[in-house]
Amino acid sequence: MLTRADIKFVKSLGDKSERYASRLFVAEGSKSVLDLLASGLHPEVLYAEEDWIIHHEEKIGSVRTEVAGAKSLEQMSSLKSTREVIALFQMPEKRYHPKHLSGLVLALDGLQDPGNLGTLIRLADWYGIAHMICSEDTVDCYNAKVVQATMGSLGRVSVHYLTMEHFIRDSELPVLGADMHGKDARAFSFPKDCVLLLGKEGSGIRPSLKKMLTHTLRIEKRGHAESLNAAVAGAILTDRYFGQHP
Amino acid sequence: MLTRADIKFVKSLGDKSERYASRLFVAEGSKSVLDLLASGLHPEVLYAEEDWIIHHEEKIGSVRTEVAGAKSLEQMSSLKSTREVIALFQMPEKRYHPKHLSGLVLALDGLQDPGNLGTLIRLADWYGIAHMICSEDTVDCYNAKVVQATMGSLGRVSVHYLTMEHFIRDSELPVLGADMHGKDARAFSFPKDCVLLLGKEGSGIRPSLKKMLTHTLRIEKRGHAESLNAAVAGAILTDRYFGQHP
Repeated sequence: MLTRADIKFVKSLGDKSERYASRLFVAEGSKSVLDLLASGLHPEVLYAEEDWIIHHEEKIGSVRTEVAGAKSLEQMSSLKSTREVIALFQMPEKRYHPKHLSGLVLALDGLQDPGNLGTLIRLADWYGIAHMICSEDTVDCYNAKVVQATMGSLGRVSVHYLTMEHFIRDSELPVLGADMHGKDARAFSFPKDCVLLLGKEGSGIRPSLKKMLTHTLRIEKRGHAESLNAAVAGAILTDRYFGQHP
Repeated sequence: MLTRADIKFVKSLGDKSERYASRLFVAEGSKSVLDLLASGLHPEVLYAEEDWIIHHEEKIGSVRTEVAGAKSLEQMSSLKSTREVIALFQMPEKRYHPKHLSGLVLALDGLQDPGNLGTLIRLADWYGIAHMICSEDTVDCYNAKVVQATMGSLGRVSVHYLTMEHFIRDSELPVLGADMHGKDARAFSFPKDCVLLLGKEGSGIRPSLKKMLTHTLRIEKRGHAESLNAAVAGAILTDRYFGQHP
């Protein structure tokens, strides 16, 4: 039976500190919830309208389920439009060793837009990139908007929050930074194992990290826009990497 | 002097029908407004805090300006966070002839996400693409969120809303559609003059348009994501086109 305390608890997970204290995050909407279930993440509990539960009985299996009405779901939600289901998932355990990374590693320096982070996690999953490294001030990957934008990819890509300077030093991989003033990326030969570092929307890669780059790459501009969207720039360079290392 | 009627009028431009009745759209925030001014669009009036006006006197020139306090600006805004300036711009006159288009033409079939449309307009501006064609049910390019996401590029890219079936028939250009079940785009030779058609988030290109495609292209998947974000898929294919036609 759904209680007021449950609603309050789910709502509280809109705060990053509450999420990390309980190691739980919220997914909203049928598609997000089913995709995360299918990707093997462990749900703690599902709050859903009765119809939704009956319709998805087989996929839900033995997961704890509570019937919730539209009004309760709206009160629990961190997003603008209300969904028929809200689930709490356990944050996956993430293990990796900086020296055991290979292929293309995506690294984000302070990205703030949840849509951009979600889009990049989905991109990583599309190209089969297993690990993403984020500086500690990058938007949290368990933010409800990020979870929604990843379309289920969060269960397949490990996102690690680290001090980027330490990661770069420890990984010993060449680090390519995307920057307006870099080398023409069209003529560039991507190393097989490397880190692609993308900077914050607006301000780019911070100076302390710029000093640590092995190469600085530029996507040639033919027109007049001041810059490209961060996720778009990341996607173009990632696609060029896989053009050379299919 | 700013009146209650002014506030009500600006707020009303959040509705598409009101925008098209007056041929005016709203830009919010210093960066958007200054970028659009610099791109040569004509502002009808600027509502801004006094400090902002004094600081930007030179760029404002002879534009009609009204001092507005934070509260009035908040009441006028269609966005979540309040800005120090809101401007009304005249929608530019857009002329083109479907038979006079050349190079890469981006065409959107029913895209709904304002961030995706804004990101694609910015992408077009980056690569120097002058014209974008949108089906009539695509999100409006003068929606406040789209204007914000374009970062000023709206003044340099002409966005035309048309019945897509008629446009494709009249343009006589080859039409490439992005679709999961298409031909491997890595091996594809892009025609110098062509239309790249991107489908709606979730459902893709509508069947009546799929029948009109000259080629269907697929971005090869190496991992497990179900799909790529629409703006990201458009960016990758656009970048591959310019790799062949620099």
